[in-house]
Order: sequence, then C-alpha cells, then structure tokens
Amino acid sequence: MIKDYVKVTEPEEEVLKERLQEERAKLFGYQMKLKDARLPVMVIFEGWDAAGKGSILGKVIKNIDPRFFQVATKDAPPTPDEARRPFLYRYFVEIPEAGKFKFFDTCWMKEVTDGVFRGELDKEAYESRIRSINMIERQLTDNGYLVMKFFFHISRKEQKRRLETLRASKDTSWRVSSEDMKQNENYDKCLKIFDRYLHDTNRSTAPWYIIDAKEKKWAELQVIHYLNQGIDTALKNSSQAVPILQNTFRMKQMPLLKDIPLDKTISDEEYKSELKRLQAELHRLHNVVYRKKIPVIIAYEGWDAAGKGGNIKRITGALDPRGYIVHPIASPEPHEKARHYLWRFWNRLPKTGHIAVFDRTWYGRVMVERLEGFCSENDWQRAYNEMNEFEKELTDWGAVVIKFWVQIDSDTQLARFTERQNTPEKQWKITDEDWRNREKWDLYEDAINEMLQKTNTSFAPWYVLESVDKKYARIRALQIVVDRLKKACDKK
Amino acid sequence: MIKDYVKVTEPEEEVLKERLQEERAKLFGYQMKLKDARLPVMVIFEGWDAAGKGSILGKVIKNIDPRFFQVATKDAPPTPDEARRPFLYRYFVEIPEAGKFKFFDTCWMKEVTDGVFRGELDKEAYESRIRSINMIERQLTDNGYLVMKFFFHISRKEQKRRLETLRASKDTSWRVSSEDMKQNENYDKCLKIFDRYLHDTNRSTAPWYIIDAKEKKWAELQVIHYLNQGIDTALKNSSQAVPILQNTFRMKQMPLLKDIPLDKTISDEEYKSELKRLQAELHRLHNVVYRKKIPVIIAYEGWDAAGKGGNIKRITGALDPRGYIVHPIASPEPHEKARHYLWRFWNRLPKTGHIAVFDRTWYGRVMVERLEGFCSENDWQRAYNEMNEFEKELTDWGAVVIKFWVQIDSDTQLARFTERQNTPEKQWKITDEDWRNREKWDLYEDAINEMLQKTNTSFAPWYVLESVDKKYARIRALQIVVDRLKKACDKK
Repeated sequence: MIKDYVKVTEPEEEVLKERLQEERAKLFGYQMKLKDARLPVMVIFEGWDAAGKGSILGKVIKNIDPRFFQVATKDAPPTPDEARRPFLYRYFVEIPEAGKFKFFDTCWMKEVTDGVFRGELDKEAYESRIRSINMIERQLTDNGYLVMKFFFHISRKEQKRRLETLRASKDTSWRVSSEDMKQNENYDKCLKIFDRYLHDTNRSTAPWYIIDAKEKKWAELQVIHYLNQGIDTALKNSSQAVPILQNTFRMKQMPLLKDIPLDKTISDEEYKSELKRLQAELHRLHNVVYRKKIPVIIAYEGWDAAGKGGNIKRITGALDPRGYIVHPIASPEPHEKARHYLWRFWNRLPKTGHIAVFDRTWYGRVMVERLEGFCSENDWQRAYNEMNEFEKELTDWGAVVIKFWVQIDSDTQLARFTERQNTPEKQWKITDEDWRNREKWDLYEDAINEMLQKTNTSFAPWYVLESVDKKYARIRALQIVVDRLKKACDKK
Repeated sequence: MIKDYVKVTEPEEEVLKERLQEERAKLFGYQMKLKDARLPVMVIFEGWDAAGKGSILGKVIKNIDPRFFQVATKDAPPTPDEARRPFLYRYFVEIPEAGKFKFFDTCWMKEVTDGVFRGELDKEAYESRIRSINMIERQLTDNGYLVMKFFFHISRKEQKRRLETLRASKDTSWRVSSEDMKQNENYDKCLKIFDRYLHDTNRSTAPWYIIDAKEKKWAELQVIHYLNQGIDTALKNSSQAVPILQNTFRMKQMPLLKDIPLDKTISDEEYKSELKRLQAELHRLHNVVYRKKIPVIIAYEGWDAAGKGGNIKRITGALDPRGYIVHPIASPEPHEKARHYLWRFWNRLPKTGHIAVFDRTWYGRVMVERLEGFCSENDWQRAYNEMNEFEKELTDWGAVVIKFWVQIDSDTQLARFTERQNTPEKQWKITDEDWRNREKWDLYEDAINEMLQKTNTSFAPWYVLESVDKKYARIRALQIVVDRLKKACDKK
C-alpha cells in the first residue's frame, strides 16, 4: 500500500516552485474562511523516523497566522500521569477548537505501531486500539471536524543516509536515538506494521494521504495540496447530516419513568445507622480502589430539585478528599462549545485510583441541548451511540462507571420549588429557568425515557434513585456505589 | 456482533402498532420528497434463510407507489451470462435511478458468504471481493446514493422451527432447499462468516443495520424506522462534497501533450503492407481471445477531427462481427443521467472473450463534464480515482484495457475543420459545437494533461496516437492492440 501510493511523479523544479507558491497562497487564504465557517482542522503527521515531519510542519505553519493554529508534539511515550488515563486521552484533550488548526507531530498511530514493534501489544490489544481509533476519528468527522492524516514515507536507503548524516555531526548526533537505528535495521518489519495500520484505519471520511518525503519541497507541496483539497471539500459541506449508526452495544431493559413506583421510604433510625455503616464501608473501599488503581466515574442526572446535591454530599462525605473530585457541569464555556461536545468530559476524567463525580453530565446533549435546539436533530440522535462508545472506552480502560437518574414526580418538584421560593435562605437555588423547564416536563420525560432506553448498556447501566424520600435515595446510592466498587475490587 | 445488535427490546403490542403506523405514514410521505430531491435509495436485504426477508419486503413496499420503486431478486447464483461479467456487474446494473427506491432481495453479500461457506473463495479471493464491495459502496454514497443495508437475524432454533413448518406442508415444502437445511446444521459456522463479512463492510457512510427478525411486525417496524432515519439524514444533505481520496494505484509517467512530437509519418507503401499484416494478425488473435475467454476493452478519446472514427474502423475491420461491438458514446440519456456516471459503461461491458470498443468514454467526466459544469468540482476531482478503481475491477476480472488518446495539434484541427466545412459530403461531420469547443482548446489541453497524469495506471495505461498522419496513427493502434492481446493470450 505505502509503496504504491508514493509512485507519484515529482514535477520539475520550475513547475514545483510555481505550484508551491499557488498552494501556499491558497492555504493562507483559507485561514479566515475556516474561522468564519468555524471549521476545526486536525492535521496528523505520522511516518518514518527522519522522514522530515518536523521540518515540513515548520514550513506548512509559515502560511498560517499563529492565532489560528497550535502544534501538539506527541512523539514521546505517555508521561506517568498520561499513562494513568485512557489510551486516547492525551490526544483527544488536544483536539482543535472550531475555526482553528491543530497539527499533531505524531498522534495515536505511533503509540500503537511502536507497541506492536516492541511486542507490547498482542493481536487482541492491537485490534482494540484500532477500534478505539476508528471510533474516535469517526466521532470527530461526524461532529464536523476535518481530520487530515499524512504518512511520511522514505526508503530504507534514504532513511539510513539521513540518520548517518545526522550522526556524523556533533550538532545533530543527539537527534538520532537507538530506536531510530533499530527502525532502520528492521525496516521491512516496520513497513509491514505501518501498512497494516494504514489499511485498518483508512476510512473514506478520514483517509490517509501518503507523502513521498524524499525531497523537502516536493513533500511540502504534497502536504499543502492535500490539506487545501480537504479544506475546500469540508467548506463546501455547509449542512452536515451523517448516517445514524445502529447502537452496537448490549442493552439492559429499562422501565419507563411513569412505571417506577415512588413510594419507597426509610425511617430516620434506619437511615442513620445505614448511612454510618455504608459510609464506613465506602471509605474502606476508597482505599482499596486507590491501591488497586481502579478509576471510578459517578454520573448524576435528575430532575431539578430531585436532591442530587444532597445525595452527592453523602457519597463524598465518606471519601478521602485527595482521591476524589466533584465536577459541577453547567452550560459549556465558549472554549468548550468550540469543541466536540464530549471534550470537556474527556478533559475531566480521573486518574486511575481516583473518583470523579459529575453533577450533571454528557447526557445534557440528549436532554437540554435536544429540547432547547442547542444542537441539530442529527447531532442528538447520533449522541446515544457516541456516549455509549465513550463509556465503553472508559470501562475497557478499567473504569467503574455508575450512572444515577434521580427521580421524583412533578408534584414533588412543585412542592420543593414552592418551598425554595418561600424560604429566604433557599431562594438562590430557584431561578426563572427552573420554572420554564418545569413547563416542559412532558417533553423532558419523553427525552429522558428515550435516553434511558438507548444508553442502558450492560457495561455502564443506569440506576434510578427514587428520591421523593431523599434519605431513601441517599442510602440506595451509597449501597449501589459500595456494591459496584466491591465487585470491581474483588475482580482485580 | 450480530448477537449483540439484536438485544433490542421489542415494544409491547400496543406501542408497536402505534409506532408502525407512524413510521409507515412517514415512509409514504418521503416518496415525493425523494423524487423532488432526486435522491436514489438502494435498500439491501441480507440475512439467514427463512428469516422473512421476502415477506418484510412485501410489507415495506406497500407504503410506496409502484412508480417509485423496483425490486431486484438476486438470491439465485449468477446465470451463465452473468458469470461472464465482473463480479459486481449483475448488481451494479440494477442500481436505482435518482428519486427512486431499489430493493435488493440479497445482493453482493450472499454471493460472497455462500462462496466462503462452500469453500469456493479462499482468503485472498475473499479479501479481493471485500475490497470491491467497499469500493463500490463508497462510490455509490460518494455520488449521492443512500445505501441502506439490513441483515435479518434469527436464532438457530427459530430457523429450524420455520424450516420444519415449511417442510411439513405440501404447499410450502418446495421452498425449503437442501442448502437451507445445511445452513441450519452449520449455523455457528455461518454466523462466523456473516459476522466477519459485516465487520469487514461496516462503514459509517453505508453502515449495517441488524434486524431482530423473530416477530414479523417488529421486524417491519425496525426496517421502516431505520429506512426513514436514513432518508431523513440524506435529505438534510443538500450540498454533498466528500473527501477526495488519494490515488492508490501505481502510475506510469506521462509526458505533457505539448512535449509530444507530432512529426511521425508513414509511407503509403509501408502503410498498406503493415495494415494487411497487422489486421491478419489481429484477426488470428481475436480467435484466441475468444477461445481463452479474455474480455477486451478498447477506449478511444481524442480531439475532434483527430481521426478516431477511421482509426476504429481499421481495428474492427480485422474482427469477426460476432465477437465485437462498438459503443459510440454521446451525452447521456435521461435514464443514464439519473444514475452513477459509470453506470452506462458498466452496462456496456463485454462478455468474456468479446471485444468492446468505446468511441469516447467515461473520461468525459473530467473533460467535457468538467469544463461545461455538468458536474461539480468535487465530482470530477473524485472521478480520477473512481475511474482507476473501475478499470482495476476490469483488469482484476481479467480484461485487457487499452486506452488511446488520439493526438493532433490545433493547426491540424483547424485545417480539417475547414476542409469539412468546404466539402459538401463532409459538412455533416462539423457542427457549431465543434467550433465552440475549439475556442476552449487551452482549457481542454490542461484538463487532458491532468487526466493523462492521474489515470495512467500500470494496469490500464494510456497510449498516445500521433495522428497528424492518420495512417501512422492507425498502424500504431493496430500494433499496440496486437501486442497487448498477444501478451494476454500468452499469459493465459
């Protein structure tokens, strides 16, 4: 595959210079158009060591104003901190924002092909990485990203020549690692690994472009040409609707909200003793989780005034503050809105052994964003599967994912709203927006039912907390968290 | 994969009926919108024998006016005539036209999975089929088709029950073949083959939808629901621009037209003797080609008045009329324009052992259609690769593909135009359009150069026929055809 691609004929010096000037000017012209169209462009450079990725990158960005691009250098192995996150994390947090370029000096490919080369990734692990990568690249393009992937190719001989030239000079010899030399010695083995990776990740929505990197100017021309071509195509797609994939994950059955009885209560006495017992147990488990390096994600969704805050407090009250964090999720900031809607959650993932509690979550996409028209119909319809995929990444990584729906009925909400309104020290908790949302109760209920049906996966199921009696709901939540953590600790 | 997909919960009778009515009405409403948007919809039904594909198909089309859909039944193996065409042929000729549905009661999947099951397709052949299928599905969606793929799933037990019920009655026992029984006996083996196929062809632009086919009404609801969802998404994509894939084929270098000397001539004497010799040789080879069942495709492109017609006559003059056909290609008819631009060429492919000569070809896409704006820029930019892929299918099938560019300079064209104008019996050969095209000589020359550079593949290269001396060009053409056929016959 790689060797065939690069049989493009290099134009003559004269023509090359002329075309290079044209394409550079075109790229320069595109930056403002990108900004206006709010198109995010993710440019990935991969390829052989010493193929000139860095130097071509330097040339390409000369045509772009520094306000419109950033560079992410990812060719070093993950730092200890990064190694304690899911595989995709250290790349995904770097995705560009709308209207800007992000250049990746190697991305998720290198980590995988290096792993295969060193024998650290077996077939199964490799295939799981490929699934993750195809998933995330599809999610990006489905969500309006332009993803341009370049593979810089040079021959074994050319690579050897370059490495030897670099080694010969005192100024540059530090740039040649033993890894580089090993790649050249095992050129054919590497070529096979690269070829397979390219084949496995070459999708028409984010295809590979192989760059004949023997001559610098020629390589630059190829890159800028394909980049311009990709931008041109993406800009023509003003209205983006993409096919909605079938949900591929095993689902658990989920009752409709209206069929869930809300009459459960707990006595004060039992509440006190259970709270004490379960919090002590949770505290103990938090230590085990920490030692066993199990990441835990607890996600809270529920009606306004359902009692999420108080519920969360009873969980965190049992935890060591150095080992957990609560993320209150409001409407996204401008820099968050400018990226994939899951970005701000990827960004807040806990390290292994830590617990992250989300007070409201990514499910806003299919509730408030759906009902208020903050995203298109195509966007929220696609989101069920995308969120399942997101949670699958988390559980495959080893995380325990617990999703709570805190449930009350409409009358209970009204009573609590009224009480808040009438109690001076609680008035800050109630806003006009709460009342407006309340008017849309039925629409929300339909959306929530659809959400619960479509995202109740076997690996990240929902738990409904019946919260007309808030105390009952707290004990239920504690019990579920304790059960899930115990199971996870026993397994590991 | 298959088993997980179908863990969807079937709704209760009441809800199911209601939703079915809704979705049916929606589908009914879509048919006129499809027509207005000129959206072609290709619906593929695949799955287990006795899964109810036919009966669900019958239910789905009840909601569509017969003017707007057709059914293609492809579950029988290829006929002897079809077996003498490329694998994709018998499916591709059935693609729907703009604004209409075409339902496939099995398509290219069944032929491949049956072949694997019977051990007729080895790994290499299987992978080549998968490449062809992914290529053609991408070409269809890139060219604005909606491709909806449904896999009907039932369990081994359910299949057995159905087959036995069918066999038990005299009226239906004929419907159960020994093949069906064999599939049930080898259910797990088949499941593996299906699973692999689905995995290998599940692309986000034409994804698979797995249908839980245990209950008829429920299966119908799933199909119509996904169909409506797909149509809805496709209708939202008014302006369609898709990424331009890198040309993945090995190219031969090609000179620019201006650098090709046109001073070659041949004496009358040599012309006569060579013509006689080569035509005799070609006649002999035509017989060998026929016996060895080698399909031959000779494609002519060239400037107006370059001498294509006379050149073709010298080729066909040597051939047995039962074994060749000349296809003069004019602008497409309405029913041709309503389909993928390569459809009318797929439709005209020769059988094995036959020769098809095309007087003008699919390359119109990147010449007249490009320059006259008959297709979008994205369309013609994509076309180079698409045409290379088309020719790759042909050569992989075993065809000899010979592409001629008949070359003259602008002065020669002027002289010939003037002579035609001034010679009463030749005046029919010259139109106002010819003069108008002539004014765009430079634009055409640029387009032709780009075409020659981007489609001069190793498997289907271009041959430039220097035709200022038409006789020279004829001898050259004969020589090339004779050489290529000789090589092909020697190899087989």
